[in-house]
Amino acid sequence: MSTGVRRRMGVEERRQQLIGVALDLFSRRSPDEVSIDEIAAAAGISRPLVYHYFPGKMSLYEAALQRASEELKARFTEPHEGPLGVRLLHVMGRFFEHVDEHGPGFSALMRGGPAVGSTTTNALIDSVRQAAYDQMLAHLGLADAPPRLELVIRSWISLAESTALIWLDGRRIPRAELELQLVHDFAALVAVSAAQDEGMADVLRAMLKDEPADGPFAELVGRLSALGS
Amino acid sequence: MSTGVRRRMGVEERRQQLIGVALDLFSRRSPDEVSIDEIAAAAGISRPLVYHYFPGKMSLYEAALQRASEELKARFTEPHEGPLGVRLLHVMGRFFEHVDEHGPGFSALMRGGPAVGSTTTNALIDSVRQAAYDQMLAHLGLADAPPRLELVIRSWISLAESTALIWLDGRRIPRAELELQLVHDFAALVAVSAAQDEGMADVLRAMLKDEPADGPFAELVGRLSALGS
Repeated sequence: MSTGVRRRMGVEERRQQLIGVALDLFSRRSPDEVSIDEIAAAAGISRPLVYHYFPGKMSLYEAALQRASEELKARFTEPHEGPLGVRLLHVMGRFFEHVDEHGPGFSALMRGGPAVGSTTTNALIDSVRQAAYDQMLAHLGLADAPPRLELVIRSWISLAESTALIWLDGRRIPRAELELQLVHDFAALVAVSAAQDEGMADVLRAMLKDEPADGPFAELVGRLSALGS
Repeated sequence: MSTGVRRRMGVEERRQQLIGVALDLFSRRSPDEVSIDEIAAAAGISRPLVYHYFPGKMSLYEAALQRASEELKARFTEPHEGPLGVRLLHVMGRFFEHVDEHGPGFSALMRGGPAVGSTTTNALIDSVRQAAYDQMLAHLGLADAPPRLELVIRSWISLAESTALIWLDGRRIPRAELELQLVHDFAALVAVSAAQDEGMADVLRAMLKDEPADGPFAELVGRLSALGS
């Protein structure tokens, strides 16, 4: 029975603590630049003890990435209430919040530096993209998407990723502007596809049917009309 | 002096032949699945002779990727004549032609499989993206772009990449439709940004000023107007 002031952690508790410390370090700098020594120091334990829980930096990096992925997926969850444009705007806000908190780590991961790009990290990135895709389908009230809608949703998700990456590189545009822009972009990409395909025109009409006059979609139409006049 | 029927190749000629053979194989299947033995057989030389020119599969892969990058960059070149929408449509046609010819290799590369993702391959991908960006700026008649325009151009380039990747996965949408869609997408993304920013509104006006009534941009506006009625 321990009587010391510093309680000894259980195995799982210690693992979780290390993951949290590592995620914090991997988020604030490029993972290439973070050493095991630094992680050990930040966790207040010895270097050999880190290796007792994780065989190497890569496995600790993957565990940290797994946690970040779960956190990001949780941020995609949005109640199925109210207009679609407003829901998307909420999700974009939480997406940029995540990107903001994990900036350098997010950039390094998505740019595929030497410490990343393993089969495991690629599978984690894909699982986040799939979660985003599934959420979009659910908000559109669809169980499955025809090829053109699938392409629009998946390519818009990649547009959101690249927009966030470019934003991180200097933060020269206010975050809130880009969150709204991505909501507008989604409507615009659906509209472009709807101009060529009748099935997509139905999707666009269904999307806009319940949008209020003061929602983000109506705002875009209003601003574009003003530009044309 | 050689008197044989099969002329012996010079060093550089042999290197270039090997790169061509390797690029062909790396294009038609995922690079992970292509062996040095296969490349040697296709080139009609022995395995040790391949190693004489390239220290390993990775260096041959990188040389093949370098050639594919140069070929793709050359396809971006389009005369600065006629309406912007038509120019972009030509470039999109040649981009999809390239993607079509190198399908499995392009997918493997852009999805970041285990045989790729090195610092060299990432630098090659970035150089192609930069060439695409520089061409877009030149066609817009600009030496430099303000942050919002840079973001729109770079994120549209990533949209073109993801659209091509999704198209390759089953080819369920006619290629020509997606080439036109990406031209429309560019105008739409500029318009969305123009709805929020006066500088971007100027870019949009300049872009549309010389567009003919039967060009791709006017076609989009016509189709969208028809949808709304």
